[in-house]
Order: sequence, then structure tokens, then C-alpha cells
Amino acid sequence: MPHAEALLFPLSIVALVVAAMTAALAAGRRSMDWMGVAMLSSITALGGSSTRDMLLGNYPLGWVQEPYLLGVTTAAALATIVLAPVIHRFHKAFLFLDAVGLVLFTILGCSVALKLNHHFAIVIMAGMITGCVGGVLRDVLCNDVPLLFRAELYASVSIVTGLIYVAGLSNGFAPDLVALVASAVGLTFRLLAIRFRLEMPKFVYERDRG
Amino acid sequence: MPHAEALLFPLSIVALVVAAMTAALAAGRRSMDWMGVAMLSSITALGGSSTRDMLLGNYPLGWVQEPYLLGVTTAAALATIVLAPVIHRFHKAFLFLDAVGLVLFTILGCSVALKLNHHFAIVIMAGMITGCVGGVLRDVLCNDVPLLFRAELYASVSIVTGLIYVAGLSNGFAPDLVALVASAVGLTFRLLAIRFRLEMPKFVYERDRG
Amino acid sequence: MPHAEALLFPLSIVALVVAAMTAALAAGRRSMDWMGVAMLSSITALGGSSTRDMLLGNYPLGWVQEPYLLGVTTAAALATIVLAPVIHRFHKAFLFLDAVGLVLFTILGCSVALKLNHHFAIVIMAGMITGCVGGVLRDVLCNDVPLLFRAELYASVSIVTGLIYVAGLSNGFAPDLVALVASAVGLTFRLLAIRFRLEMPKFVYERDRG
Repeated sequence: MPHAEALLFPLSIVALVVAAMTAALAAGRRSMDWMGVAMLSSITALGGSSTRDMLLGNYPLGWVQEPYLLGVTTAAALATIVLAPVIHRFHKAFLFLDAVGLVLFTILGCSVALKLNHHFAIVIMAGMITGCVGGVLRDVLCNDVPLLFRAELYASVSIVTGLIYVAGLSNGFAPDLVALVASAVGLTFRLLAIRFRLEMPKFVYERDRG
Repeated sequence: MPHAEALLFPLSIVALVVAAMTAALAAGRRSMDWMGVAMLSSITALGGSSTRDMLLGNYPLGWVQEPYLLGVTTAAALATIVLAPVIHRFHKAFLFLDAVGLVLFTILGCSVALKLNHHFAIVIMAGMITGCVGGVLRDVLCNDVPLLFRAELYASVSIVTGLIYVAGLSNGFAPDLVALVASAVGLTFRLLAIRFRLEMPKFVYERDRG
Repeated sequence: MPHAEALLFPLSIVALVVAAMTAALAAGRRSMDWMGVAMLSSITALGGSSTRDMLLGNYPLGWVQEPYLLGVTTAAALATIVLAPVIHRFHKAFLFLDAVGLVLFTILGCSVALKLNHHFAIVIMAGMITGCVGGVLRDVLCNDVPLLFRAELYASVSIVTGLIYVAGLSNGFAPDLVALVASAVGLTFRLLAIRFRLEMPKFVYERDRG
């Protein structure tokens, strides 16, 4: 996780913590032990950026370079265990912070791919992978069909955020401003999607064999 | 995906499209939304070669270098949604094209590993990974035990194809001829396996604890 | 797998064989065919070190450099099929050898990361990934929630073993002695955990939505 953007860095730690905490709750629903909770949380929170960097060959990975990030995700997981009895009261705060995490991870992912001079489409993909893959890993390890493939415009929010971010930068606007606008639009889109239960049309195919 | 073999390149696009379409049908059986269909299709179609390149440290990955491949897989996924009502009529064409895809991906995978001067056994593995891993990713993301591990000589076809290809090249035959013969044998083997429901013996172990 | 430690190398082959055999039994419980058994065994036995090396960007991977390792895992898988009718008699030997494998893989993983001059925390992680990820891949491919996240202090044993190994080396003790002591403590810890059914406290969270 690059320290370049002064604005993005503290927010990205918040995003990391929220991703770890949502994963910890998923782990708790499957009665994992404390170590399992910590592992699932770390994989979820750091899995998106790690996958992006492995696909792009961008070594060393963020947490390998800054091992304290593992401490952050582990602490967030353990805090979730402690806070579990009251955590449902913060349900709405979680949804909000999860949306913040999605747009921030997306922008951070785009920004990494831009620095590596990748093609426009790869930059958008890098943002989407950073924002979404952690949750896919969480669901696969919890033995679910990933939510990402089924619901709630998660990936679409990531793509829209990435498109605005890349378009803004390539038109010469100030990076901080562009990040702010892209985040605001992505966040609004995500919250509207949750509020009004917006969904993509589903593809239902019911024959047994294709 | 290297452009070296003039013969292989257009066929490999066909293979990519077919892999994406079969994944789209699998996604439809799980009622994924359109974005999920596009993602599952892209992961399935490009996952084999991406896994091979990540295991071999062969960067950049094909789709990172040629982003239009993502457009091909996405278009194939969306076309599948449109064509869904009539697609079952082409069931046999699908099985045939899927077999074509398997042998082509295998040969492309072997060819990449050969260029990197890998050991004979690694070349065969690279072919098998390119041919088979996409389907494993599809099944894991759909929350199934991978078909690959249970049925239909899929991996065996890949190994036979790879062996003929490597043996032919190392005996000095013309690459195009070798690719053609390996494809023909592999394809025949696969179609016979489907036609006569050939299967490997299964290993059934029923004690609860090993 | 580095040949550096004369003591570790033969033992690591034993660990590889045991990991392949336990995976073969898991494959047998899902009625996989022989090829599927061989593939699942190889992925389980070599998946931990491969994941570590891909995360650290440490190419080429062990089995790519030493392809005979694929022969070892395949042979172990096929031997398991042959030995299946009597294998339950060796249940306790398996549990013991599996514990040996865990501590050996851990130490080998730490040793690789140490040679790459990684941070202390990353060295411990590298050991844990090498020791534990193979089993996670096995469980995901068998469509289970990974045992690792739920039971038996597996990861904890790996961390304790790694901590002793790293602490010993950084205090200047002889590598062979340190490896021996770390193995002995880790093995004892693991066997006590099995014997007395020691478990970490579980985190149970039962609300539907976090």
C-alpha cells in the first residue's frame, strides 16, 4: 500500500479494519476458532491487493513490505470477537464503512496500476480486483458462492469509481480532487444500491446440461 | 497468448469464447447477475493461462498485455445471456468446441513453457494447467467439487495431447504439423471419452477418518 | 525446496509423501478418479510452498526447479489407492507423520523467507503458509470449510514452531540444533493437542447479518 496519497493512506487503514471485521463476523457465523477468525480476516482484508499484485507481477506485496498491516488485520479480528455482543447495533455504520472500503480499495488499486503504466482497461480491472477479490476469498473459504457474483452492484460500483478516477486523472485534474469526486460518486452509488435494493438483472438458466 | 503460431491464434480465440460461454451457462444455473456472469466467464476463460504464468513467474500475463481479451470473454458472456433460450440446441456443438478448447489451450500452454526452456515434465504440466485450471476455478466459485477431479478423462486428454506435442517437437517435426497431429489425437480421445462414457477408475474410500 | 539443510531434506520428502497421502484419502472420500486423486495430492503437498513462493515473488517454484517432486506426490497418491484396504490400521502413524510434516514444512518455509531477508513477522507467516495452505487448498477443492479455520491448533503449532526456530537462529545457536528443538517442541505441542483434544476458543456469532 503506497504512502503517496496523504489523503488516502489513513482512510485505507480504516478500509482494511472494516474488511477484517466483516470477515470476522462471517467467521463467527461458521464457528471458527480465534486463530481461524484472525486468518480469515487477514486474507479478506489483504487478499484483494495481494491478488492484484500477483496478477501484475508487482513484488513485493504490500503486507510483505509493511508487516504491521498483518497486525492491523489481526487486531481488528480480535476486537470483533470482543465487540460481538454489541456489534449488531453498528450494522448501519458497518454497511457505510464497507462501502467506503470498496471505493477506497478501488482507487488505491487503480493508482497502483497507473504507476505501473498499464493499459486503461487493466487499471480499471486492478481497481475492481483490489476492491472485490477479498470478499470472494472470504466467501470461497466460508464455502459459499461469492456474494459478488450474485448481488448488490458491488463490482459495478467499483467499475464506476475506477472509470471516474481514471478519466479525471487523464484529463489533468488534481489527484486529490479526482480521488475525492470518484469516492463520493462511488459511495453514493453504493448507498443508493443498498437503500433501494438495486440489483443487476440476473441470468437464470435452468437446463441441467448446457 | 503469444501470436507466434499463425494457426493457433485464431483457434485460441474460439477456445476462449467457448470457455467463457460454458462458464456463463454455469453462472446462469446459479442465478448470478450479469456482472457476475461476465466475471465468472472471464475468470474461467483466462484463469488457466493466468495460473500457469503465475506459477512459472512468466510476467506480464496474457490479458494484461492484450486487454482486448477481457473484451472477448465479456462479450461471449453477454452473448450467452442473449442466446440462452436457444443455446441447448447447440449442446453437441458446445461439447465439440469445448474439446477443441481443451486441446488448444493445452498446446498453447506447452508452447509457452517450451519457450521458457522448462523441463519436459513442467511443459506437460503447463499444458494441463492451461487446459484444465479454468474449469476448476469455475467449479470452486460455483461451490462445486471440481468436475476435473471426478470425471471424463479431461486431464488425461490434456496429458496425452501434451505428450504428443512435446515428443513431436523434440523429434524435429514441423511445429504446425505437430500441433495438428496432437490436436487431432487429443480431440479424438476426448470425443471417444464422451461418446462411450469412458472414465478412469474411481478411488472410493469410506472410512470417516484416515 | 532447498537442499541446504542435510537433516531437513530427507524428512521433507517424508512430509511431502504424508501430505499427498492424506489428500488422497480425502479424494477417496469424494470418489474422485485416479487422476483426480493424483492432482489433489500434488496440489495439497506442493501447494503450501508454491503459495509462499508466489506471495514472496520467489521464482522459480520448488517443483518447477525439481520436477521429480511431482513424481513423488503422484506415486504417493497411487500408493494410497493400493494401500487403501489396510491404511486405517496406520491411522496413528498418519497422525504422527502429519504432525511431523506440519513442523517440517513450517521450518522449511521460515528458512526460505530468512534467506530472502524478510522481516521477522513475514518469516513466521512464510512458515505458517508453507505448513498450512496445502490443507486449505485440499479442503476448498473438496468443497469443505477449511479445517484449519476450525480446529486443532494446527496454525498455532506452526506459529510456535516458527517462533522458536527464528528466535533460536537470531540468538546464534547452530541451525541444526535450532531446527531440532523447534521441531520437537512443535511436534509435542501438536501431539498433545490431538491427545487431549485441545482447541482454541471458538467465535460463535449467530445473527444473520453483521
